[in-house]
Amino acid sequence: MQRRRVNRSKKKLGQIPGSIIYTGERSKEDLFIESFDYNRQHCSEKTLHSIEESFEFKNTDAVTWVNLNGLNHVNAIEKLGHHFGFHPLVLEDVVNIAQRPKIDEHEGYLFVVLKMLYYNKENNLVSEQVSFLLGKNYLFSFQESEGDVFDAVRVRIRQDKGRIRSMASDYLLYSLIDAIVDHYFSVIEILGDKIEDFESAIFEGETDHDTSRKIQDLKREILRVRRSIFPLREVINKIEKNENPLIHKKTITYFRDVYDHLIQVTENIDIYREMILGLMDMYMTSISNKMNEVMKVLTIMASIFIPLTFIAGIYGMNFNYMPELQFKYGYFLVWGIMVIIFAGMLYYFKRKKWI
Amino acid sequence: MQRRRVNRSKKKLGQIPGSIIYTGERSKEDLFIESFDYNRQHCSEKTLHSIEESFEFKNTDAVTWVNLNGLNHVNAIEKLGHHFGFHPLVLEDVVNIAQRPKIDEHEGYLFVVLKMLYYNKENNLVSEQVSFLLGKNYLFSFQESEGDVFDAVRVRIRQDKGRIRSMASDYLLYSLIDAIVDHYFSVIEILGDKIEDFESAIFEGETDHDTSRKIQDLKREILRVRRSIFPLREVINKIEKNENPLIHKKTITYFRDVYDHLIQVTENIDIYREMILGLMDMYMTSISNKMNEVMKVLTIMASIFIPLTFIAGIYGMNFNYMPELQFKYGYFLVWGIMVIIFAGMLYYFKRKKWI
Amino acid sequence: MQRRRVNRSKKKLGQIPGSIIYTGERSKEDLFIESFDYNRQHCSEKTLHSIEESFEFKNTDAVTWVNLNGLNHVNAIEKLGHHFGFHPLVLEDVVNIAQRPKIDEHEGYLFVVLKMLYYNKENNLVSEQVSFLLGKNYLFSFQESEGDVFDAVRVRIRQDKGRIRSMASDYLLYSLIDAIVDHYFSVIEILGDKIEDFESAIFEGETDHDTSRKIQDLKREILRVRRSIFPLREVINKIEKNENPLIHKKTITYFRDVYDHLIQVTENIDIYREMILGLMDMYMTSISNKMNEVMKVLTIMASIFIPLTFIAGIYGMNFNYMPELQFKYGYFLVWGIMVIIFAGMLYYFKRKKWI
Amino acid sequence: MQRRRVNRSKKKLGQIPGSIIYTGERSKEDLFIESFDYNRQHCSEKTLHSIEESFEFKNTDAVTWVNLNGLNHVNAIEKLGHHFGFHPLVLEDVVNIAQRPKIDEHEGYLFVVLKMLYYNKENNLVSEQVSFLLGKNYLFSFQESEGDVFDAVRVRIRQDKGRIRSMASDYLLYSLIDAIVDHYFSVIEILGDKIEDFESAIFEGETDHDTSRKIQDLKREILRVRRSIFPLREVINKIEKNENPLIHKKTITYFRDVYDHLIQVTENIDIYREMILGLMDMYMTSISNKMNEVMKVLTIMASIFIPLTFIAGIYGMNFNYMPELQFKYGYFLVWGIMVIIFAGMLYYFKRKKWI
Amino acid sequence: MQRRRVNRSKKKLGQIPGSIIYTGERSKEDLFIESFDYNRQHCSEKTLHSIEESFEFKNTDAVTWVNLNGLNHVNAIEKLGHHFGFHPLVLEDVVNIAQRPKIDEHEGYLFVVLKMLYYNKENNLVSEQVSFLLGKNYLFSFQESEGDVFDAVRVRIRQDKGRIRSMASDYLLYSLIDAIVDHYFSVIEILGDKIEDFESAIFEGETDHDTSRKIQDLKREILRVRRSIFPLREVINKIEKNENPLIHKKTITYFRDVYDHLIQVTENIDIYREMILGLMDMYMTSISNKMNEVMKVLTIMASIFIPLTFIAGIYGMNFNYMPELQFKYGYFLVWGIMVIIFAGMLYYFKRKKWI
Repeated sequence: MQRRRVNRSKKKLGQIPGSIIYTGERSKEDLFIESFDYNRQHCSEKTLHSIEESFEFKNTDAVTWVNLNGLNHVNAIEKLGHHFGFHPLVLEDVVNIAQRPKIDEHEGYLFVVLKMLYYNKENNLVSEQVSFLLGKNYLFSFQESEGDVFDAVRVRIRQDKGRIRSMASDYLLYSLIDAIVDHYFSVIEILGDKIEDFESAIFEGETDHDTSRKIQDLKREILRVRRSIFPLREVINKIEKNENPLIHKKTITYFRDVYDHLIQVTENIDIYREMILGLMDMYMTSISNKMNEVMKVLTIMASIFIPLTFIAGIYGMNFNYMPELQFKYGYFLVWGIMVIIFAGMLYYFKRKKWI
Repeated sequence: MQRRRVNRSKKKLGQIPGSIIYTGERSKEDLFIESFDYNRQHCSEKTLHSIEESFEFKNTDAVTWVNLNGLNHVNAIEKLGHHFGFHPLVLEDVVNIAQRPKIDEHEGYLFVVLKMLYYNKENNLVSEQVSFLLGKNYLFSFQESEGDVFDAVRVRIRQDKGRIRSMASDYLLYSLIDAIVDHYFSVIEILGDKIEDFESAIFEGETDHDTSRKIQDLKREILRVRRSIFPLREVINKIEKNENPLIHKKTITYFRDVYDHLIQVTENIDIYREMILGLMDMYMTSISNKMNEVMKVLTIMASIFIPLTFIAGIYGMNFNYMPELQFKYGYFLVWGIMVIIFAGMLYYFKRKKWI
Repeated sequence: MQRRRVNRSKKKLGQIPGSIIYTGERSKEDLFIESFDYNRQHCSEKTLHSIEESFEFKNTDAVTWVNLNGLNHVNAIEKLGHHFGFHPLVLEDVVNIAQRPKIDEHEGYLFVVLKMLYYNKENNLVSEQVSFLLGKNYLFSFQESEGDVFDAVRVRIRQDKGRIRSMASDYLLYSLIDAIVDHYFSVIEILGDKIEDFESAIFEGETDHDTSRKIQDLKREILRVRRSIFPLREVINKIEKNENPLIHKKTITYFRDVYDHLIQVTENIDIYREMILGLMDMYMTSISNKMNEVMKVLTIMASIFIPLTFIAGIYGMNFNYMPELQFKYGYFLVWGIMVIIFAGMLYYFKRKKWI
Repeated sequence: MQRRRVNRSKKKLGQIPGSIIYTGERSKEDLFIESFDYNRQHCSEKTLHSIEESFEFKNTDAVTWVNLNGLNHVNAIEKLGHHFGFHPLVLEDVVNIAQRPKIDEHEGYLFVVLKMLYYNKENNLVSEQVSFLLGKNYLFSFQESEGDVFDAVRVRIRQDKGRIRSMASDYLLYSLIDAIVDHYFSVIEILGDKIEDFESAIFEGETDHDTSRKIQDLKREILRVRRSIFPLREVINKIEKNENPLIHKKTITYFRDVYDHLIQVTENIDIYREMILGLMDMYMTSISNKMNEVMKVLTIMASIFIPLTFIAGIYGMNFNYMPELQFKYGYFLVWGIMVIIFAGMLYYFKRKKWI
Repeated sequence: MQRRRVNRSKKKLGQIPGSIIYTGERSKEDLFIESFDYNRQHCSEKTLHSIEESFEFKNTDAVTWVNLNGLNHVNAIEKLGHHFGFHPLVLEDVVNIAQRPKIDEHEGYLFVVLKMLYYNKENNLVSEQVSFLLGKNYLFSFQESEGDVFDAVRVRIRQDKGRIRSMASDYLLYSLIDAIVDHYFSVIEILGDKIEDFESAIFEGETDHDTSRKIQDLKREILRVRRSIFPLREVINKIEKNENPLIHKKTITYFRDVYDHLIQVTENIDIYREMILGLMDMYMTSISNKMNEVMKVLTIMASIFIPLTFIAGIYGMNFNYMPELQFKYGYFLVWGIMVIIFAGMLYYFKRKKWI
């Protein structure tokens, strides 16, 4: 995860509200638009070369999914918005990638924003904004760049698997959100692995001066994931409860299922938050344990040899009259005493379980 | 408890919603179906050899309990679902063992999922998913594998003890949930024992480098139990409040009783969570106390012998003119001084209560 | 406080719901029943020899208080329940001493459970369950064993002090609950004393290896008291709000007063919870301060004598040519240097405020 | 702040409800009653010699403020209560100084209790209970002893400043509460100063063994202030919302202003709570930093002189054949080596920034 | 950030409610009033020399924005208030700079207070109070001193960019609030940078005795920012929900957008609060790690040289009969032994990864 402190909306201070300005970093992304138009009988899949080609779908009966990649192409989005009559603030939100997951109900269409989370090849967590505009017979989806988690849905549309071809656009919305939420599970699984890796590393003593910082970084990552996912619960809840005519009763059951999944994800995240607090404690005790070990080595060495050195010092004194020095076996006697002290000390530390 | 990080629904990403795919690990489990059919007068107990044998109970007047073990046999479950008209998402939830405890009300039947908790022979906490499908005159229960906590209920049915034979299927549901909740008490009792064991171990100093990790593991276990039990409160609460026609007024009093038990369990769990935080603090202070002890030994040894060695060093110098060396009893005088210093130090440390 | 981990309902797993089985430990308690029958004019106090004697009070106009001690006598309680028409689950709760404080409204009577807290002679916190069954003209109270906090109420009935003789059974219920709540104040006062004792002990350095465990125990005790008292707030609140015909409007003012007292108690408990967290911190810093002190002693001794010993070592070398050794006052010169170093060190440590 | 653990209502256990018994400590306080009687035209201020003198104000049209100091004079208060028809429980609360801030609405009058906070001359926080009984044309205020924060209000009445003389008794109530709340700001300012003093003391290293206890005491003080002030918010909120006929619409705007002030006070208190947690952490790190410093001194001294002493020891050995001893400049050579080691060590520690 | 403990309203204790007294510190600020009067067709911008010049705008049709800098000029504000009929308490709040963000609805006008946050040239966080009085065709804004974040709005008015000239005064209010909220992002970005700077400093070991205090200061700063921003959410929410006739339906969409931004800001602040707790932990572990390092140096030095010194001491003894002394190569043998011990020790510490 690259360090980005504030996911702030980077519009220039003082910019006019409703200005459609892309705030992300992938400003050289090509525009890529794909469309699916399907109903129970037929299904046509096309790559559009200009946004205008999608206008024709406005009044067809079949369900149309237009997936637009490349939010930097604000002109195309503006034209689209103008043709379909979307509010300028909605379009501003589509291209401003600092949105919180949210749902806005408008006359004739629904606007849903959420975050697609995945780990990229460099193993950095990427949080890509995906917006949906749901109308009666169409669904527009907007992504920053190509590459997403929707392939399974595409296959189901093409091959007419499951219910999707016989349902309306709201079921398509559900399918796409479901695909994103399913992907959250892999993200939190990686987070869980990271926590366990830290636990093992601390246990094995394979820590360095950077460990506490890395734990702090992981905590930040978890907080970011949390912030991307938590508001989505409210979004799905609103879809379930609000009785919007665009969402059919039959589909609500499916959204409830997504909601259940979200609860599972968020519960796991909250457990991770608690675990990570424990990590820091584990690390602290491991440092203290290490210090204890160091201190023990020092204490044992010093406690054994300082008295012995003292004895040696005694018999190194130069007094004229020191009777022991004359003893024939004085030297060996002293050695004997030293060995006894040495053994006694060892025994003492053994009993204290320091050795 | 085996380490499982994410209790995630392991359906393949992009799987079609409503697919009935078992997500657990016991994929070679045999299918075992038992049935009870009873009313005030009679009671027949059978082991069914195929799920089709249970279809006949659909329209009997007596209460039927069909208990199915082996969620990997998705075909049987699918047939059952088709015959009794259960929603595909419900059947998906039955075999997807990563559900949160929940209740879903459907036309003509109730769907309840919860977790049966117990410690297995290896002393690992097992959390097995149990689902109930309650109809007017039947109750289906689904478990991952044979072996459960329902034996007492079976006995009561067979021997016509208590009210059970004279009540409807909702009372049977209550009895089974009650049996599961009763079992939670033994689980949290073991958790409480574990906490006390840690307290004793820390107090006795019987800790090792792994202690903080084990405490962390116990914390995780408590969090998992919490997550399995807490949502159940809401489930029972909904049963009490929702006035579903399948739940008779007479039975609600019993569910309220289960609710009271659940509150007791969850309160205990929350106390354990606080206790476990205290455990880590206890462990930290015990490490610090140990270090204090080590330091004291070092300080006492060094403080006593370093000055003595210094004195010995003095009289080991080779100056030509050192009057003391000529004293007749110089050597013994020095010994005397050393003994006094030694005693003084001992007294000093005694007064400081370091010895 | 004896260690009891789980205040669990000890009914045998699989026991039939509604079974009236005493779950406490005082199974050899004698049955002791006393009764008060009073109105504005008269008051009769009796010790009943069997529960049947209380049946006659069912239809009197006067207020009757029957106080039953000895929950192990389940037969008596069952007979009573049968005669007065109490629900089996209610009777089960009366003798199952693991109840949370709660109120259940039934047709014609109210069921209230709460906890009487006191410190016994061994200075252990005892939490005794007291249940009340309030009818129009009677009040049954159930205790585990003789000895309670109701003596003042008895005196007021006997001597016709205050309003009690001119009020109905609900006022009697209020008076008894009020007496129990009043007693909570003495319990939390003792808890407060204990916290202050720890503070003093830590401040005076009178801690031992068991201190953190004792703090942990005190925390547990506070949590237990909290759990016994907190739910009672909701109980009293329900009495105030629910407009049960058994509770007269005039009495509600008095219950509101009890409620105010309860809030005071619970606020104190919450302050204690925060204080006890602080205790652990105090203890930790006291350990660290002690270690600092130990280290200082070591450092001072070592820093002073190691350089001196080095100097002595220098002049203990046996080089053929060491000019200083020949100096007439070399020895005394060295002593002088040593004294200067000694004094300098002392001054240095003095300035650092280590001495 | 004197240590008082439990602000408990000190009524003797078992006391009759509604007994009017003073529970404070100032039992020899003289009774001091002052009265103001004013309207737009006139204002008379008197010191009353008995409570009976206030009875005449019951039916005047002008607004009357009777301020009674000396809650130990329960007789006077009882008489007053009897004459004006106040509920016994209200009078009990007036003289029981362990009340939480609260408001009780009664037929014809309002009862408000709150806490006046100030630091006395010994710099102890005093929390004095002030009760108000508001009627249509009168306001009784009750204090434990003379001396309060109302002088500015008295001046405004006497000199007809601001709106007070042209408003009803509810505005007087507002003015007095406002004066009390204004005073909270000085209290929390002192608390803030105390926290900053601790920060400076810890930073300057001017801590002693009592520091953690003093921080704990300050925390307790903040918690007590919090408890005195927080419930008042609800009280003022009730006044605003409840549409009591005694509170005129015009006055409500003023109460809303008091409410805003209270929110400011409580926000500050909550910030202080967080700061004080940080204080303890600061103290802990300061202890650890000190220990680091001590250890460094020890390590530097020992690391420099132990090797040097070893070298001196080498040449103090008495082997017959030790060639170096015969070298002419052997002694000086050794000195040279020692100086090099000494310098090398110094450089090493310098580079490690320990010196 | 200058240390200001209590953002208290500094009105003299006992001051009359509704007194319009400036409580800030910039009491010598000049009065500076600018006005914009615009509609779709025209726009006139003026600097007013006295507050009376603004009175004429009261009844114009065009939208008027009067921006007044210099809250110390209370007379002007009082005159204005009198002319436009604002409540005295409102005017008191305008000049009392200790307000919490709030909104008050009055007959015919809305009163909104909030905090403009920015870092001044000395890099101190400045929190300046801005009040708005919104009427049907006018908006008054009040600031402590010149210099604000509204320049972009001014440009939009002058150059007729965006919607502003064709909308009513409520859109102007939105634009100004939006400008302030946009500025919050830069403030929290700086806070985020500060946290990262601390993380780096701790990681690099560039800490000093003041570090914990600085972290504490940063925490305080974050808490202050939090307190300035959080209540604004409620303010905007009220504007959205309250259906005040002064706020047109069309404008509400824009306020909802501001609300979304506020949520983003406050979420970041909450993440910072968690991060800062982690900072302190990081600092603690870094201190402990340092101590470990110090201890290791000491232990290695002592453990290596103390045994060697002991050996040297042995052969410095003066016993008459010590056979080794006579060995021809005794001296070299001893050196050999010492080198072996030295190497052994080095190897031991190497294996323990202490070196």
